[in-house]
Amino acid sequence: MPRYALKIEYDGGPFAGWQRQSQGQPSVQAAIEAALARLEPGPHTIAAAGRTDAGVHATGQVATCDLARDWDPFRLSEALNYHLKPAPVAVLQVAQVSDDFHARFSALERRYTFRLVQRRAPATHDKGLVWRVQNPLDAAAMRAGAAHLVGHHDFTTFRSSICQAASPVKTLDEITLEELPYPGGCEYRFHLRARSFLHNQVRSIVGTLERVGAGSWQPDDIRLALEARNRAACGPVCPPQGLYLTGVGYPADPFV
Amino acid sequence: MPRYALKIEYDGGPFAGWQRQSQGQPSVQAAIEAALARLEPGPHTIAAAGRTDAGVHATGQVATCDLARDWDPFRLSEALNYHLKPAPVAVLQVAQVSDDFHARFSALERRYTFRLVQRRAPATHDKGLVWRVQNPLDAAAMRAGAAHLVGHHDFTTFRSSICQAASPVKTLDEITLEELPYPGGCEYRFHLRARSFLHNQVRSIVGTLERVGAGSWQPDDIRLALEARNRAACGPVCPPQGLYLTGVGYPADPFV
Repeated sequence: MPRYALKIEYDGGPFAGWQRQSQGQPSVQAAIEAALARLEPGPHTIAAAGRTDAGVHATGQVATCDLARDWDPFRLSEALNYHLKPAPVAVLQVAQVSDDFHARFSALERRYTFRLVQRRAPATHDKGLVWRVQNPLDAAAMRAGAAHLVGHHDFTTFRSSICQAASPVKTLDEITLEELPYPGGCEYRFHLRARSFLHNQVRSIVGTLERVGAGSWQPDDIRLALEARNRAACGPVCPPQGLYLTGVGYPADPFV
Repeated sequence: MPRYALKIEYDGGPFAGWQRQSQGQPSVQAAIEAALARLEPGPHTIAAAGRTDAGVHATGQVATCDLARDWDPFRLSEALNYHLKPAPVAVLQVAQVSDDFHARFSALERRYTFRLVQRRAPATHDKGLVWRVQNPLDAAAMRAGAAHLVGHHDFTTFRSSICQAASPVKTLDEITLEELPYPGGCEYRFHLRARSFLHNQVRSIVGTLERVGAGSWQPDDIRLALEARNRAACGPVCPPQGLYLTGVGYPADPFV
């Protein structure tokens, strides 16, 4: 059976997350599997690079599926988008890949962006698409705090207590902070890059760095929290709606 | 009575437009007037710089209101945002202004941005916030076409047949085209600036320039359409959901 890689964008708002749910709650995986079943009799089971949580978005999720027919990649993307309507899920690109390519296990890198908006007024157009805070933030302090997290560390403090990863030790290759103008305030975009992330790692990091930006934590407190290797040392976990899986890296990009 | 200027952002999606409707359909004006009535007994009538159409957004609309009490501007913005919830309308800033300041008649300039996304897949996060087209677009051709529109012209071709302006002659001070990366495609932002605009002028211009970008019109056809001074010479009027009123200019900015 030919195997295909799909590059997928979605608004996580209406979904219980990427992963198909036993209770039948809507999931991105189930939406795409249902669209595949309109093209070829199922059941279909697709695998994704990042199993995003409820409310988390993607602009560059990658999943693989096996189909019986030999599909032209462009026609497959068009057919899937047709059957996905009106769910806020879009297939941006399709590529045929070899049988040993696996969206999750072949991935060498995941990239996430978190959109944090600081202003007094609630979000309007971006409701559900950003995390809005009202207190002013100090970008330099957040950058100084973030610098302690880059590299190879035991991230026990910054992972969910229900995280199922075998080890809490990960290498965070990048965490950069971009400042953008935003009507009535300022937008901060955190860009994180690693081979893989622990459960809730990005939201634990951003939620804690926001406390640094607000001044209630010092940048060096991030180092102390990391060294504590204790979930209780983490700051508040921020909400999911500002988080986007923006891309996945493979030994060879299947989409070029 | 002290007079206040409000800088307002809204998602135009759920509204029949800025202006209060006799049939009671939801409007941005009515939402803000209702919030004002929670602060001081009404009726309140507010005036806006741009009476945006159904589905059109704003990030920098300006309106004026008269209140009996002497409000601290910051507290007034906080109180209005509290009472506006959950409508996607936010007061970004409030300033006390003199009695001779009028949001509409004192305005020297209006700025609009139109977001046009070119890609095959439907919009997800930006559904209702951009106009998505599937055909490739030629930015250089759109720029060449737009150049014919800058300056002092009779814009009869590019205004709605129900436009109530006394004259179709307007000066378009700027129309620039910004290209931005967009997942699975490209985003084109048209920035337009003029003292005032005719009804449907921006959407008539962008809809026609899109035809130039698609190659079915030549850039010089824009000049011919303008010179025709005939509504029938206009290209298709594009949908409202990509249009944003981003700012209004006054002799002195009331918000600084």
